[in-house]
Amino acid sequence: MSREELEKKAITSLLSIASAWYDQMKAGEIPSISLPSRTKYNIEYDDASEVWKYGDKESLRNAASAKSATHLLKMAYVIGFIKQQLRENRSSTLREMYYISEGWKRAKFAAQDESNYLIEDLEILSDVPREGFHLHPEENGASIYGPMRIREETRRGMKTIHCQDDVGQAGYTIPNSVENIEFVDHDAKFVIAIETGGMYDRLIENGFDEEHNAILVHLKGQPARSTRRMLNRMSMTWDLPILVFTDGDPWSYRIYGSVAYGAIKSAHMSELLATPKAQFLGLRPSDIRDYNLPSDKLTDKDVEALRSELTDPRFATDYWKKEINLQLEMNLKSEQQAFAARGLDFVTKTYLPARLAEMGILKR
Amino acid sequence: MSREELEKKAITSLLSIASAWYDQMKAGEIPSISLPSRTKYNIEYDDASEVWKYGDKESLRNAASAKSATHLLKMAYVIGFIKQQLRENRSSTLREMYYISEGWKRAKFAAQDESNYLIEDLEILSDVPREGFHLHPEENGASIYGPMRIREETRRGMKTIHCQDDVGQAGYTIPNSVENIEFVDHDAKFVIAIETGGMYDRLIENGFDEEHNAILVHLKGQPARSTRRMLNRMSMTWDLPILVFTDGDPWSYRIYGSVAYGAIKSAHMSELLATPKAQFLGLRPSDIRDYNLPSDKLTDKDVEALRSELTDPRFATDYWKKEINLQLEMNLKSEQQAFAARGLDFVTKTYLPARLAEMGILKR
Repeated sequence: MSREELEKKAITSLLSIASAWYDQMKAGEIPSISLPSRTKYNIEYDDASEVWKYGDKESLRNAASAKSATHLLKMAYVIGFIKQQLRENRSSTLREMYYISEGWKRAKFAAQDESNYLIEDLEILSDVPREGFHLHPEENGASIYGPMRIREETRRGMKTIHCQDDVGQAGYTIPNSVENIEFVDHDAKFVIAIETGGMYDRLIENGFDEEHNAILVHLKGQPARSTRRMLNRMSMTWDLPILVFTDGDPWSYRIYGSVAYGAIKSAHMSELLATPKAQFLGLRPSDIRDYNLPSDKLTDKDVEALRSELTDPRFATDYWKKEINLQLEMNLKSEQQAFAARGLDFVTKTYLPARLAEMGILKR
Repeated sequence: MSREELEKKAITSLLSIASAWYDQMKAGEIPSISLPSRTKYNIEYDDASEVWKYGDKESLRNAASAKSATHLLKMAYVIGFIKQQLRENRSSTLREMYYISEGWKRAKFAAQDESNYLIEDLEILSDVPREGFHLHPEENGASIYGPMRIREETRRGMKTIHCQDDVGQAGYTIPNSVENIEFVDHDAKFVIAIETGGMYDRLIENGFDEEHNAILVHLKGQPARSTRRMLNRMSMTWDLPILVFTDGDPWSYRIYGSVAYGAIKSAHMSELLATPKAQFLGLRPSDIRDYNLPSDKLTDKDVEALRSELTDPRFATDYWKKEINLQLEMNLKSEQQAFAARGLDFVTKTYLPARLAEMGILKR
């Protein structure tokens, strides 16, 4: 869907929410909305799109109580705000919208969590991502370095950028709205999405991108929405293998989970934000054992997070059960930069070639 | 100093530390090092360079105890590691060096704080910034958007980049080592260094860079070392006014302090990292009052931080005393995005032009 189509769909869908309330009131009914329940117990695997989505559990919100009526009032104000913003071709951050609500009297938000949550409601109701509302988050996108060329629509016109030749050593920064990017061409065999800046820099310094025709993406910890959208589009547009390389701890598996399966709180956007073909490269608990990496003991919170992953439908595979149970048994975790204990070239000369061959990405 | 000269100085200075130990031992003395004490009670204003530096208080460390001897042993290992790294033209992160010490037996670091602190010791002893050792931090530099052109030496050759015309909407990302940048030319009247991504995006979207020939720098909260080095070089090379625009709370004044005066823990590098001519634009406590901005009450931690600033020599001016005392009296703080409560254009059309005129940067 082009940017223009997305914006048109946003306006149409949002206004139809308001006109449904109008119809309800005209018919003497109490205005209401119905939304899927957003917990890990209400996400289901969708075979067609290969992503996890919300299931059938719904919660109804009607204006019969003061609290719910205020919620609908806030939604009405937000719809009005988005309509005006799209008409004037402006955009704003979620934080700005929160402050703008200062002028909305009883519809003023009490905290930013509340306004963020309401925007998610509107994404679900309209089936349009918030980029289509011109609302973007504070967080920056991460960086890309590798043999690919994009065209980006910027305030100062269309820019064509090759992500090795036209950028500094830090790479190309993913903009807030990935919808403004066109994918021109590439000369890559695969994409490695990397958790830490130290490892991203290591692969660039060691020339891994050149030697293996690899596109390197820095996830910067839990990846921003724009980073996940970028990986989704690289996978869909170019059908490139996407490999996720993180630390070896439960928080990092969640990073992989949010790239591959989508986050629970954005399960309604999984088709746009998740990359079901993304594969977990490492660092696996079995790597900690096989390479005898420097490691730390698991904390109580780590153990709790690992146990929670064992009951998370996104990790309900034999592979993850085996690895997570191994980790609980060893009681150890390692960081991806721990490979440096074997020398600065170990990760690019030994670990990654072996692991990529095992995964069938590189020929042995 | 060019990059080559810096690296040569690094080698010479570091090896002279080791040879001094050799001479001490040959003379039958216990090897030792002497370092300035690194607290806020030992920083002094240096009139010549206009920055805060360590004063005369020194602490001596000699190998008479097992603990101090181990410290010197670790320093010797690190000097050997840096020597090899520079000889091979490699670089590494502080985190990688920490893991590399796994192979150093009794000289292995117990925690990363310890290895970071030792690198700071070596910076002080050698008078060379760690970039000269090819050691870089994990943290990324921030982004720049505005009318300026740089040349950066990258792994794939020299790149010339105009920070509006040759970049995407997210701007040019400052690399780990600002020493690899040459400043080509600019068409700017001033630089605004901005704390939050939301405000940085707001100024770009509103065309503030074009309308006022402004270079916009995103500080990303407490600025990374490379961001501070970049501001220092923009100020020194081009003599451009540097204006710091943050939230209105004690943590943000510290951001300004680290840009203008340098951080206490890097006072030995102030001439390279601080920008003494940087001016605080806002958000001032008096702005919260004068513009009646949406605000929050100060927390106990905020009050404590403000009181601590009142005793910090970097904030010992009438201006800061007046503003900080006003804030304590009002018991309020605001974020820079709070201007959105007056509309999305208020900050660029009303607040900034008025404030910049008051500061003498824009003509009334």
